[in-house]
Order: sequence, then C-alpha cells, then structure tokens
Amino acid sequence: MNGLRIPPGIQVFNSIKNFRQWRRQILLDRQTLGYVPTMGALHRGHLSLVSKAKAACDHVALTIFVNPAQFSPNEDLGTYPRTLQADLDALAQHLDKAAVLVPQVAEMYPSGIEPEVSKQVGAFVEVKGFSHQLEGTTRPHFFRGVATVVSKFLNIVEPEQVFFGQKDAQQCVVIQRMIHDLHFNVKMNICSTVRESDGLAMSSRNTYLTPIQRKYALVLYNALKLMEEMYEKSTKHAPTLIAAATELVNRTQQEAQAECEIKLDYISIASPKDLNEVKGDIADGCIMSGAVYVGKTRLIDNLMVNVNL
Amino acid sequence: MNGLRIPPGIQVFNSIKNFRQWRRQILLDRQTLGYVPTMGALHRGHLSLVSKAKAACDHVALTIFVNPAQFSPNEDLGTYPRTLQADLDALAQHLDKAAVLVPQVAEMYPSGIEPEVSKQVGAFVEVKGFSHQLEGTTRPHFFRGVATVVSKFLNIVEPEQVFFGQKDAQQCVVIQRMIHDLHFNVKMNICSTVRESDGLAMSSRNTYLTPIQRKYALVLYNALKLMEEMYEKSTKHAPTLIAAATELVNRTQQEAQAECEIKLDYISIASPKDLNEVKGDIADGCIMSGAVYVGKTRLIDNLMVNVNL
Repeated sequence: MNGLRIPPGIQVFNSIKNFRQWRRQILLDRQTLGYVPTMGALHRGHLSLVSKAKAACDHVALTIFVNPAQFSPNEDLGTYPRTLQADLDALAQHLDKAAVLVPQVAEMYPSGIEPEVSKQVGAFVEVKGFSHQLEGTTRPHFFRGVATVVSKFLNIVEPEQVFFGQKDAQQCVVIQRMIHDLHFNVKMNICSTVRESDGLAMSSRNTYLTPIQRKYALVLYNALKLMEEMYEKSTKHAPTLIAAATELVNRTQQEAQAECEIKLDYISIASPKDLNEVKGDIADGCIMSGAVYVGKTRLIDNLMVNVNL
Repeated sequence: MNGLRIPPGIQVFNSIKNFRQWRRQILLDRQTLGYVPTMGALHRGHLSLVSKAKAACDHVALTIFVNPAQFSPNEDLGTYPRTLQADLDALAQHLDKAAVLVPQVAEMYPSGIEPEVSKQVGAFVEVKGFSHQLEGTTRPHFFRGVATVVSKFLNIVEPEQVFFGQKDAQQCVVIQRMIHDLHFNVKMNICSTVRESDGLAMSSRNTYLTPIQRKYALVLYNALKLMEEMYEKSTKHAPTLIAAATELVNRTQQEAQAECEIKLDYISIASPKDLNEVKGDIADGCIMSGAVYVGKTRLIDNLMVNVNL
C-alpha cells in the first residue's frame, strides 16, 4: 500500500475489522449496500457492475483480492495483473464515493492456503453438481475456490445486493446456487457482458494479449455467434451447432498458425438448470459457452439463448 | 405443527422468511440476539446454553432441526427423538421469552438432500483437517453435515453470539474453525457439559437407554476420569493412559456381558490445536474423548485437560 494515492471519494480498507465498522454504520443509518467482488485490474465490465450497484443501493463496496484458492499451481496467480492505483483512479472517475476492501491473503485465509487442494486445511465451500463440468473440467478446483472466497466476502461485506457479470456464466450459476442453498441474506444480480467494439468480452486477462493475438482473440465470440445464428435460422440440434463452431475455430487456427497459436479448450451448449450438455435438440433455453487459448492466454465467453440467469 | 400448544412467551416460526422479519426488528431496535442451535429433544444441557444466551444477549433464538445431512444412511435419523411440544413447554418454564425456528427439510435444503454423500447436489461446507479423525473416523461425513447446516443457520439467524456445548468437543473445534475461516460475524461460546448426578453427560440419545443400559452408560465417563486422575497423579504418557481406559471399558464389558452389550468405539487423547493424537507425553493441554456403544446407542463424552476451547 506504500505510495498509494487515494483519490477523493474513495475509502480504502486493508483490514476486515475497519471495513466492518464502516459497513455497520450504513446498517444503523438504515441505508443499503451494493457489493461488487473483483480481483482488480478493473475494466469497463467491472465499472458497469459498479454502476448497477450504485443505481440499486445507497452505498457501493468493492473488494479487490486475487484469490489464491481459485488458481491451481500451474495457473497465472503470480502474473495476474495487479493495478491497484489505476483501479482506484478509474473508480473515482466513475462514481462519487465507494469503499474498497483490499485484504491480505493471511487475513482472508486464517488457516493458510496451500496451492495443492489435497494439502489444504480449514473451511471450504463446494457446490456439488455444478462445479465439475465446463470450466470445471480443465479447472477442477476453480469453483471451490470461488465459492469459498465469495462466502467469506459475503460474511464480511454483508451487502443487501451483490453484482456479478454474466461473462462468468458458470460462476453465476454456482454462486446463485450457493446463496440459495446456504441462505445468504443477499439479492444476487447478474449483469450483461460488456464487450469491446468488435465484440470481444471484457476481461482482465485481455491485457496479456499481444496485438496479433488480440486480432485472433475474437475467434471464440465468432464461434458462439455462429451457433446462435444457426440456432435462430437453421437448426436447434446442439451437436450440429457445436460441430460448426469447432470447425470455425479449427479454420481460424490454421489461418493464424504462422503468427499466433490458438487452441480450443471446449465449446458447450448446456442446460441452465443443471449445466449438463444438451445431447439432441435445444428444447428451452441454453447457455452457449466456450474457452480457447490464444497464445498462453485462456479466454472464456458465453451467450445466453432464451435464458435469464 | 397440528395440535401444537404454543406456551406463553414462546414464538414459533415454521418459515425462514417470517423468522427473518422477527430478527430484522431486533437489529433495527439495536438489540442483540443469542442463538442456540439444537436438534430438539431438549435436556438440561440445552437449557443451560439457553440461560447463557439469555444472560449475554437481549433476545434468545433456538432452532430445532434434525439435520439429515449429518446422519449416514445406517444411522438413527428416523428414530431420533422428536419431542417438540415438550421442548416448547420446557423452554417456557425456563425463560420468559424466546423465538424458536422449526424449519422444514425442503426449505433448509433447496437443492434436496440425498442420504448418500456421493449423490448429493448443491452447496456444502467442509472443514478440512479437523473432520476426519475421532468422531469423523466412524462418521466420515458427519462434520460436513454439521458445518453445512450451521452455516445455513448462521446466515438465517444472524446472531451476535452463538452457544455450543462442550460435550460435542470436536464439533466445537470444527465450528470454531469454520466461523474463523469463513468470517462469520458472530461470537462463539463453548459451555461446559451438563451431567446427571452420577456424571453421565446429558444427551438426547440417553432416552434410548433401558434402565440396565443406563447403569452401564457411565463406563465412558469412568474411563475418561481414570485417564484424568492418572494424568494428575502418575503419568503423562498418552498411550499408557489410553491402555488403562481401554482396560476399564473391557472389564466393564465382561461384567455386563449377560445383561447389556458394551462396545468401545474409540478412546483418544488429542491435541486441541489440530485434533491429532498425542503419541508420547502430553505436553500442554489435551482433549480426552471417546465413544462407546451401550446396546445400540452410541454415546460420546470428553474431558478438557488444561484447555479452553
């Protein structure tokens, strides 16, 4: 925190105890608090969540915390962008007042946090049945880390409303289920994905992309749009849609070969109810989603078809 | 709830929503709430927790809920004593006012609750490193069920203070760790075990005992007391103490053979820090604990030696 310039209107808390005092006063004043959990590296997607929180509640709080429990040992925990000064400046330009809790790992995980799940000790939250598929296939412990840290933060922030971005669709389903099952006293809001002008979904990980990679990063969105278009115009048969999308990614991969490595992780058409793959025709709504590696950067995106999460 | 007589001063809630309204008013009145979670079949042990809650807080709430997630398919979920009318009457005699939430299983577990863990779906809380030993050896999923339901209730009741009995020592350690790790905004109180005049720890499961079994039920307490006495007078060597306690149980087993079956589950001397067995001499404090079957009834008890949980 050394050398940090706190812009006007922004209150930064490094300790949970001090944050709780600030929050307690809002409660006693009978005002409401809207909460946006983040890992920092704020972009327009985050700021749109902040706007929604501001519109719905008297006060806005953010947390900025790169959560070790949702990274596996081979992932980008060490290099994940940390841009606290820029985050605070962006917030101050975006709204007149906000509280930002920036806690230490040791305070968030009093029992410590081992990178390897088998060695972890202490309390963890799992949402069974919704965490092993899609993103959970390549990242089996990701949602356990997410559900655990969101539980912690909901208990610390105690907001009336919490705001998540639809870009992390499975995360939204997992957290929604957790809030419901564990009876957290909070209203969950899921807000549309904010995109660059060409359609690329905003993501803190986009900053990893070189200019060439940025050009090809649109491949996933294009594949999802293709499925949506075919769904509307020609077929509701999920495997046919996925085959067409996969074909598009493969084609782009070949075109890019010389200048940029592209690797498909998955393309999925899943039921919003249980996140299981649609095997035949899409009956009601569905979540079309996917993940690709562009260079070493893993990008995700999704489109909701006749679904309101 | 048909035919239930609600005694004066007692408010019974069957829905979480209505309970939350009652609780909200206490908050707005800037008063405090003490909470005692129970599975009903209230005995003097529970009532002593209620007294502690009343002394510490402006209002007292209990939950009465036989939690399916903490019973395995072969345990006594079906026959666990359900004595709601007697519970409410006992409460009314014990204090002038209290709120009692008696929720339905379907409302507590919105994703349903399968008896077999492998089939369960939805959000669950686990406290790793503290749930697999001692009670967790014979009841591997017990503390997952306990941690999950206590999480739910803490989110529903939102008490300033919560009260647990030391009789369930490992449960206290697990819940304490969970509250700490997940940052529940509540003060945890652990209250001494209440005993019958001969020393038998109060337990709802004592009602299962026939008069003959009741006579032999003291075997566990006697074994623990023997270890405590030897610790004070002759040796601090944990394996020696456990051998003596086991010997006492075996002797009682032989004496009882004709009229009552006694089976030792475990006798343990564990560190209060990590609940691991003390292998050699007891250095600081320890938890002396055990479980025995008297007939088909499983009884547990413990003594804390130089420990304040």
